[in-house]
Amino acid sequence: MALLVALDKPVEPGLAGLLCRVPGVAGVKVGLPAALRGGIGWARSVARECDGLRVVDFKLADISSVMASTVEPFLGHYDAFIAHSFVGVEGALDGLKSLLDSAGAKLVLVATMSHEGARDVYDPSLPLVERVVERVDPWGIVAPATRPGLVSRLRGRFPGKVILSPGVGAQGARPGAALCAGADYEIVGRSIMDTGDPVEAARLVAAAQERALASCGGGAVGGG
Amino acid sequence: MALLVALDKPVEPGLAGLLCRVPGVAGVKVGLPAALRGGIGWARSVARECDGLRVVDFKLADISSVMASTVEPFLGHYDAFIAHSFVGVEGALDGLKSLLDSAGAKLVLVATMSHEGARDVYDPSLPLVERVVERVDPWGIVAPATRPGLVSRLRGRFPGKVILSPGVGAQGARPGAALCAGADYEIVGRSIMDTGDPVEAARLVAAAQERALASCGGGAVGGG
Repeated sequence: MALLVALDKPVEPGLAGLLCRVPGVAGVKVGLPAALRGGIGWARSVARECDGLRVVDFKLADISSVMASTVEPFLGHYDAFIAHSFVGVEGALDGLKSLLDSAGAKLVLVATMSHEGARDVYDPSLPLVERVVERVDPWGIVAPATRPGLVSRLRGRFPGKVILSPGVGAQGARPGAALCAGADYEIVGRSIMDTGDPVEAARLVAAAQERALASCGGGAVGGG
Repeated sequence: MALLVALDKPVEPGLAGLLCRVPGVAGVKVGLPAALRGGIGWARSVARECDGLRVVDFKLADISSVMASTVEPFLGHYDAFIAHSFVGVEGALDGLKSLLDSAGAKLVLVATMSHEGARDVYDPSLPLVERVVERVDPWGIVAPATRPGLVSRLRGRFPGKVILSPGVGAQGARPGAALCAGADYEIVGRSIMDTGDPVEAARLVAAAQERALASCGGGAVGGG
């Protein structure tokens, strides 16, 4: 149970439920383009269909009042919410964390990202970002499957945190690469959803993760 | 014409048009909570009502494919789009900039933010952020009215860029503080929209800006 399927476009009713029942699929992650196009009602219907881990990924990066107002319609429907560590604590992540705690929801902080441009500012700021993660104490962190060395570093630095890794598939990382480096979940979007048969594609990715884990000696994965 | 009214909740039909016709109001900025609740159709109707500067402010901070997909429904309706500089160039802002250029839309990059937590990571990274701004060459940048020293620094560093400053009102900065430091627009949300009469409140803020500018010796403001 280490695969999170990223929905970056609205999907037909029923498909999210089918994806969540594929062996190895832990849940779904709804992105901003999908939520804007599909609307809050669509996002809630996805959450109703899927009884796995339901993640809202808007890469929140604003002051606390705006982030709080953004997540409110999804509280009680989704389990976890992704925000950028970059925005810092006071007046931003402190308020979001309090709101999510009081709603019984989980906070996931981006530690760095999967694309080349993450080397421009995010990576050089990693020590500062790690201090924000320490202070905010989120449930999970996001670290890129495309750069497994960073996943290993963050696994060592934050042994108790759940690690979610994007970048598998269209962005170049192979299924299992981040799991072998210490991640709990791999997030896969386009290489599942941009196929003619997303359910079968999800099955294949989950199987590839299992094979990779067997060969790297990984044990039971998928926190929660 | 130096006041941008921030809409962080959906407003009734007609109100955005009234606000945009208040003397001194340059346009509107639509935030993520409003766009999610109101939907794409509501956001487009706001743009139709207002013939000033229309800004989409989702604080975009993702890989280029996701940011592109996020802004697409708003292209042709809005003039400018705000993204975070800290996500870097390759695979992120490069793709967004190309898309906006080809659509005749403007990119605005956040250089740093208005809340206390901006001191955690954003401020120490300012030299790296400034290099991203140089490389991406956006139309405008966002710098906080709450910290006019940063507005002055960025005005000196980027003389040709339009500067948008949030933080006036609820966050503590006085109308005109950022304009006197070199900003082109001040963004005001709650202290206009959370009143019984937003049109009158906008008129008062615009008048306060004028008075502040007169006393600091500022000239004609409001780029575009």
